[in-house]
Amino acid sequence: MTPARPDHAARITALTRMMADRDIAQAAFVPGPNFYYLTGLNFHLMERPTLLVVHSDARVTAVMPALEKSQWQAAMPDAETHYWADAGGFTTAFEQAFAPLTGRVAVEGLRMRVRELNAVRNANPQLQIVDEQELISSVRLCKQDAEIEIVTQAVVISEKALAQACETVAVGRTELDLKRTLLAAMLEQGGDGPAFDPIVLFGAAAADCHGHATTRTLQAGNAILIDFGATFGGYNADITRTFFAKHCDGFAQDFYNTVLTANEKGRQIARVGLTAGDLDAGVTQVLADSEFREYIVHKTGHGLGIDVHEWPQIMVGNDQELADGMLFTIEPGLYKPDTLGVRIEDDVVICASGCQSLTTFPRDLTYLGE
Amino acid sequence: MTPARPDHAARITALTRMMADRDIAQAAFVPGPNFYYLTGLNFHLMERPTLLVVHSDARVTAVMPALEKSQWQAAMPDAETHYWADAGGFTTAFEQAFAPLTGRVAVEGLRMRVRELNAVRNANPQLQIVDEQELISSVRLCKQDAEIEIVTQAVVISEKALAQACETVAVGRTELDLKRTLLAAMLEQGGDGPAFDPIVLFGAAAADCHGHATTRTLQAGNAILIDFGATFGGYNADITRTFFAKHCDGFAQDFYNTVLTANEKGRQIARVGLTAGDLDAGVTQVLADSEFREYIVHKTGHGLGIDVHEWPQIMVGNDQELADGMLFTIEPGLYKPDTLGVRIEDDVVICASGCQSLTTFPRDLTYLGE
Repeated sequence: MTPARPDHAARITALTRMMADRDIAQAAFVPGPNFYYLTGLNFHLMERPTLLVVHSDARVTAVMPALEKSQWQAAMPDAETHYWADAGGFTTAFEQAFAPLTGRVAVEGLRMRVRELNAVRNANPQLQIVDEQELISSVRLCKQDAEIEIVTQAVVISEKALAQACETVAVGRTELDLKRTLLAAMLEQGGDGPAFDPIVLFGAAAADCHGHATTRTLQAGNAILIDFGATFGGYNADITRTFFAKHCDGFAQDFYNTVLTANEKGRQIARVGLTAGDLDAGVTQVLADSEFREYIVHKTGHGLGIDVHEWPQIMVGNDQELADGMLFTIEPGLYKPDTLGVRIEDDVVICASGCQSLTTFPRDLTYLGE
Repeated sequence: MTPARPDHAARITALTRMMADRDIAQAAFVPGPNFYYLTGLNFHLMERPTLLVVHSDARVTAVMPALEKSQWQAAMPDAETHYWADAGGFTTAFEQAFAPLTGRVAVEGLRMRVRELNAVRNANPQLQIVDEQELISSVRLCKQDAEIEIVTQAVVISEKALAQACETVAVGRTELDLKRTLLAAMLEQGGDGPAFDPIVLFGAAAADCHGHATTRTLQAGNAILIDFGATFGGYNADITRTFFAKHCDGFAQDFYNTVLTANEKGRQIARVGLTAGDLDAGVTQVLADSEFREYIVHKTGHGLGIDVHEWPQIMVGNDQELADGMLFTIEPGLYKPDTLGVRIEDDVVICASGCQSLTTFPRDLTYLGE
């Protein structure tokens, strides 16, 4: 199923309304999720500086490497574009695009690089450049129904692949081998590619919450932590389940069930009007009230969509109120160094009835490889 | 095969020698290829600012999210590290790390983001921050034998996968379907994952040199442009071949053979002492001397290794002399808008005898799906 083409002009107009509230004359985007959301173009962020500029009157200008010309013109025929070629360099194009501007320029502080920032500054030293990543990304904060539908498909593909990979788990297999099986299953199920390099960790390695798969082999009693997702139609799934190989001890059972209770609480209390910070507090409280409180490492979750980590951040101090269409992860975890790590991550969307989990993969403690 | 653990301390020492030549007191790295090269840690560049700082005396300090603590300590036990947790934010950690510094700070202009730059500036407004991406990346410019061996393995995996995917080409298949087949074959052959989202384009779509696979179906006579590579052991392959479905016309044959001649010339003339700019000129001359000169779009190639696009850039004006161990792509292409695109990309390494191509996949005009 190919989703209907999004209305990029409407998205640009929505952005300009947010800019007006903050007295921002123009917003500049490098290739990435916001660039894709506003143009439909999935350019890579590489060595050639590339900038989309949205002005307060919804005009679009751009600094564009010449080799992107055909894609750019097809997508944005009305943009005033300053092309540059490898032979001549990008300085003149930045001068043409930025010298005439006045007022504040909002940029993505977590995306725009020092190279582009310096190019803008050199082109027009008077411009006030402000890191407004969160503001300009908030145009993507509440998902449209068509977007939720695509993420749902990415989740379905991911869960089918996870189920397929679980069937193959056996003592003696390596993390890398299981990761490859998972990726192949995801492609077979129709995924466009991995949302990120899948995390597959066995035993004590699961205590590194950002560890990478190695040639470590699976032993009976090991935790099997799998954190992965498919990309589909430009959107991402991000799912974690933690299983055990054949059996596990009482400590691991209690550890696991504490995380599960926290995950359940998150899905119960998330609703329109609750702040992201209060959702985080409610989930974290379950972990903090347990005997495992010293093993809390990270926040409850993050937004999900075109980017794998976007807004809202479900974390302490975030007073953003949850609203209809917000899509994010609920992923409490506990990590006892050199011993055990457990994370249970669902992708949920806020709706009228509270919170709907797009992920439905079973969460009860499960033994694999039997 | 697992390669021997690299000597990270020696790499840091090599970096400090380059820094001394340019009066750089410290170099700051965000997660990415240089960070990995210097530490062995493959962190993601995400919402949590993370900085490695190498000082001129080879001391290492860092600003590190608390949740990376176990991996970081295991890899860099002697580093003076300022941890920060989501609850408290990163400001204090940046102040602790940067307030005591004086002198120039070299940063990666194509990697460090506005968010980290501002955090460093706020922590110490007196510091002079300079974009020295090319200088500090040049520590990775000449590959060690062990690195060339790993890239060779990534190439072998990629070529086996490409051969497997070619067997399945048939009129009526979609670009996305062929891309999935290619990815699954790459995993089956032992790749750790894709080096980048593979480019699979049919017919006129191949004229967009950065186009993406769609549900477009293959027709007889179409070009089939495949640009992809496996990641293996932290290093990447990057290969392009252009085939035709069943047959092609005389124009396409001439077009193809012009690109092939340019590719061959590049592999013939690349040698120690030739500048990257002269290599580009030699290759581009073949295209420019043909009847297709108006369809030249991009430079001849780019460095390859931990990153898919690194240095040296094989482009006009680059007076960097090629040296033993430099590893890069030779990938001339021609792109006639709305009609045809052809690119033939090899991964080569400079050695005593000139230039050795790690890619050996056949280059002669080939029809698939017969």
